[in-house]
Amino acid sequence: MSAVEYSPGETRIGFVGLGIMGEPMARNLMAAGFDVTVHNRSREAVDRLVTAGAKPAGSPAAAAAAADVVIVMLPDAADVRAVVLGENGVATALREGGLLIDMSTISAGVTRELAETLERQGVRMLDAPVSGGQQGAVDAALTIMVGGREPDFERARPILSMLGAKVTLIGECGAGQVAKACNQVIVAGTIQAVAEALTLARHSGVDPEHVRDALLGGLAGSKILEVHGRRMLDDTFEPGFKTRLHHKDLGIALEAATEAGVPLSTTALVRQFLGSLIATGDGDADHAALARVVERLSGSDEARESR
Amino acid sequence: MSAVEYSPGETRIGFVGLGIMGEPMARNLMAAGFDVTVHNRSREAVDRLVTAGAKPAGSPAAAAAAADVVIVMLPDAADVRAVVLGENGVATALREGGLLIDMSTISAGVTRELAETLERQGVRMLDAPVSGGQQGAVDAALTIMVGGREPDFERARPILSMLGAKVTLIGECGAGQVAKACNQVIVAGTIQAVAEALTLARHSGVDPEHVRDALLGGLAGSKILEVHGRRMLDDTFEPGFKTRLHHKDLGIALEAATEAGVPLSTTALVRQFLGSLIATGDGDADHAALARVVERLSGSDEARESR
Amino acid sequence: MSAVEYSPGETRIGFVGLGIMGEPMARNLMAAGFDVTVHNRSREAVDRLVTAGAKPAGSPAAAAAAADVVIVMLPDAADVRAVVLGENGVATALREGGLLIDMSTISAGVTRELAETLERQGVRMLDAPVSGGQQGAVDAALTIMVGGREPDFERARPILSMLGAKVTLIGECGAGQVAKACNQVIVAGTIQAVAEALTLARHSGVDPEHVRDALLGGLAGSKILEVHGRRMLDDTFEPGFKTRLHHKDLGIALEAATEAGVPLSTTALVRQFLGSLIATGDGDADHAALARVVERLSGSDEARESR
Amino acid sequence: MSAVEYSPGETRIGFVGLGIMGEPMARNLMAAGFDVTVHNRSREAVDRLVTAGAKPAGSPAAAAAAADVVIVMLPDAADVRAVVLGENGVATALREGGLLIDMSTISAGVTRELAETLERQGVRMLDAPVSGGQQGAVDAALTIMVGGREPDFERARPILSMLGAKVTLIGECGAGQVAKACNQVIVAGTIQAVAEALTLARHSGVDPEHVRDALLGGLAGSKILEVHGRRMLDDTFEPGFKTRLHHKDLGIALEAATEAGVPLSTTALVRQFLGSLIATGDGDADHAALARVVERLSGSDEARESR
Repeated sequence: MSAVEYSPGETRIGFVGLGIMGEPMARNLMAAGFDVTVHNRSREAVDRLVTAGAKPAGSPAAAAAAADVVIVMLPDAADVRAVVLGENGVATALREGGLLIDMSTISAGVTRELAETLERQGVRMLDAPVSGGQQGAVDAALTIMVGGREPDFERARPILSMLGAKVTLIGECGAGQVAKACNQVIVAGTIQAVAEALTLARHSGVDPEHVRDALLGGLAGSKILEVHGRRMLDDTFEPGFKTRLHHKDLGIALEAATEAGVPLSTTALVRQFLGSLIATGDGDADHAALARVVERLSGSDEARESR
Repeated sequence: MSAVEYSPGETRIGFVGLGIMGEPMARNLMAAGFDVTVHNRSREAVDRLVTAGAKPAGSPAAAAAAADVVIVMLPDAADVRAVVLGENGVATALREGGLLIDMSTISAGVTRELAETLERQGVRMLDAPVSGGQQGAVDAALTIMVGGREPDFERARPILSMLGAKVTLIGECGAGQVAKACNQVIVAGTIQAVAEALTLARHSGVDPEHVRDALLGGLAGSKILEVHGRRMLDDTFEPGFKTRLHHKDLGIALEAATEAGVPLSTTALVRQFLGSLIATGDGDADHAALARVVERLSGSDEARESR
Repeated sequence: MSAVEYSPGETRIGFVGLGIMGEPMARNLMAAGFDVTVHNRSREAVDRLVTAGAKPAGSPAAAAAAADVVIVMLPDAADVRAVVLGENGVATALREGGLLIDMSTISAGVTRELAETLERQGVRMLDAPVSGGQQGAVDAALTIMVGGREPDFERARPILSMLGAKVTLIGECGAGQVAKACNQVIVAGTIQAVAEALTLARHSGVDPEHVRDALLGGLAGSKILEVHGRRMLDDTFEPGFKTRLHHKDLGIALEAATEAGVPLSTTALVRQFLGSLIATGDGDADHAALARVVERLSGSDEARESR
Repeated sequence: MSAVEYSPGETRIGFVGLGIMGEPMARNLMAAGFDVTVHNRSREAVDRLVTAGAKPAGSPAAAAAAADVVIVMLPDAADVRAVVLGENGVATALREGGLLIDMSTISAGVTRELAETLERQGVRMLDAPVSGGQQGAVDAALTIMVGGREPDFERARPILSMLGAKVTLIGECGAGQVAKACNQVIVAGTIQAVAEALTLARHSGVDPEHVRDALLGGLAGSKILEVHGRRMLDDTFEPGFKTRLHHKDLGIALEAATEAGVPLSTTALVRQFLGSLIATGDGDADHAALARVVERLSGSDEARESR
């Protein structure tokens, strides 16, 4: 069985969690020809997808009952736990031999707990968190970091490759979540560094636009300098990844780090700054708003003059 | 005069400072057809370049006496000050209308001081620090960040374009040094973030090699994840940019930040870690050795087991 | 009733949690003449106290059944929740009008949850975490920070004053835990500062003993410079407060800070260093072992010589 | 001669630098019966002291010419260098066998340089920086940390004991400055910790006044919690030690730490926050204003409500 890949036309997918990530992901699976049954807490997204050809399910269990594979894409561990193990949860209905793919960002610890519980009833699990944001979900261009057994990964590849441009098996169960935590650590540290640099330029009387231009392509260059640097220069933090979610994700990373015995000095510091943004009303702004924290700690032109 | 670009065949260049950066840069100018007179504190590099066709000079003044343009490429501000303004310095000999291009990494403050002094004797100055390392110098692939007046920049472009792949006028005098400081801030923060992430992966029992592979190309991807991440995985910190130089450069950045009224929280922290590396004997290692600091603070396998 | 103070001879106390803090605290109450019924997960401490005149109880409920006041002193929130609300928990047996005093260090959030639950069954609650360590518990010299209603606090004062030298009503329910979090934040930051200072002295070739002596009594002086400074100089971290407990407490503080919208930059950093100590096998050492982290990042004499 | 202590009635003192510290110090020496000749850049303080019985000197050299001991108390290393080694400096006039006591806060490195230069002309030197602030200077209650040779220290003790309540020989030349750097490191870290704690309390809806009261006397208690905590609660940062001076002093400490191979992680971070205060116009406020940085990063009540 493990040798047979899941495939459009044959495989039935249950999809739970139709937020700004989940909805376009479910659409991409439908576009690829998969039979998709969807469930979501609020009804509207379900209706939209049903109009597009999906089948509706009134509960996670209902979505799982008719499925070979269930994908969940939810905000946090409490949601995942409730949807998988709760009343009318996926675990009550997914058949033996079925596969749960959790694409949410939660801790590796909770992931392993869930996998063990499911294992005992003959259900397999992959953790497959993503990076790439809403646009990546829409464009099926996500980076997908997978933890689990290789045969399960191989079976699931045709599904995952409809969702992401880069799908990697990182290691055993939970390894996908560890990779995602690493991703969030690097992204946070890099944004903060770009924020410190561009604020330094501006307050030194140098056009940060020119600095960004000069640095793109060099060793300091990165997609973050390009995209998030742009947002900082425009002081426009609308699209993208929410500060409060990055704050949550770094909480997961720091917890994992405590468990692993690795101090994350700068990550812990940046998380405090993200917390500051939430506190001051910017929780829904793009995480590039870290530049606002640096700015808030910097002198205004008037203060500078009076120095 | 300002309208006439410097050109091989016509322009005589004095080059002072033939270290691991300066020597290949001088060679590239010679290869481009410029008439190059070289000076260096230790004699060996001079001899090698003379063999290759350069003219030797016994002092900075001698290198400047016969030159239209003098380039200096030196370790720090004290060296630049001595070479330019000291006894037998460039300033004593460079003719009115001449141009000094300082490609060293020093502070914008000292840069402005030098420029004002030179200005008073009719000599122009550009600050033009670089990034890209020794390999970039050899390959004429440096990123060159220039501060100064536009006409001077335009005149100098044919020279600078023989040394770098990307040459940008950032702003007025000192702006090149500010951009370089920004560059070093971003590079330091990003390396530290990558170090924290890959150490987290390894101590979580996940192959950091796979994590790096998965993340390259995504939002966390960068040349630093690629190149410095590789060095961390190999625990090989031989080639590249020395920890002690990055430590020095962040000192310049933090000083500039104090002046500009911008606190650089994570940069200040990373500088302490670079200082730790110098203290423990890794001052000459590549700055990717920041991973060793994270590692040193992390539990060994034995310690973990006994927890 | 609320006007009547609890008093030895009349008030029956249930005491749950006889660890290194709880056991001497229960003994002090017995010495003051209170009728004390004790419960503990492991049996040995119960036996010791029974020998000294306490009554044994087989469960938290049994300890509460015969009591006017129940005191709990437990390692963390999960323990408190289980002991209070769990099967055979305090809440199942404490009579209406009774009082629960939670002297454990847990979050203000969980505290409020518990208080609300108890309130619904007519039971009052005070949170009353302590500082002062094992010695303070033995000597009845603890600092006790209390949250709750004033009448409850007044009724309980004769009990609390048998345990601590300084008993303060900070504010409403949870306020005691907030004060304790503040205490741990200050202690952590001060220990780290002392560690950085004394390590700086030693590696500068100056006797840190003389530095500590000179500074005691001045603005830099504190009980921490005296006591923890002493431990650092002796590199002896045996007595005192365990690193892993301080790490836990700062986790509570940082969570409270996130909730309150206050970034704790240096606290977050110090917590990482405490985590490093746990990772490297020093979790049971006194928190003054933070000096070991600073030391580990510093150059050895050999490394210094080769610089 | 080295066995003979300096004494009022016999010893002539030259005093250079009559700022808010130097003036009361000179007065205390005069009150003790010493013959004092004073010099200061601006004339007013000289006039005030002459009225009180001091002799005026038109230059550091003039103050030194008639003196057995010269005390300097100046803002920074550049000033000390100029006053001691510059034109009409102390070194040009102090007689062989004389003693220079530098009570300024400068680096140990510069201190050693000066001492060596003076040594060559037969003049001895002690570094003797102080803590205790203006009030401590007025009350002769300073903490004085001394570096130098024991005989010189013993000879000078009758002078220093007229200025401070606690006078300690820390070690060889420069050791006083190292101790002072340690002092400033501890004070900075402790203030920051108190600022984080009290801000946490207030934003948690708990009266920080009660928290401070409860903590005074316990392990978290210190003169800083008492004095600087008070200032934070009152949001009044007028008296005391200026933020810009503490920022300067931590610069010295961090430089010393780099030299000694000791990373000062939290100190480096706090220095950035002090820099932020300078940038935003609070450079002349008492360093307890660090609470303003924590506050600035925290949510306002409005922002909190909208969360």
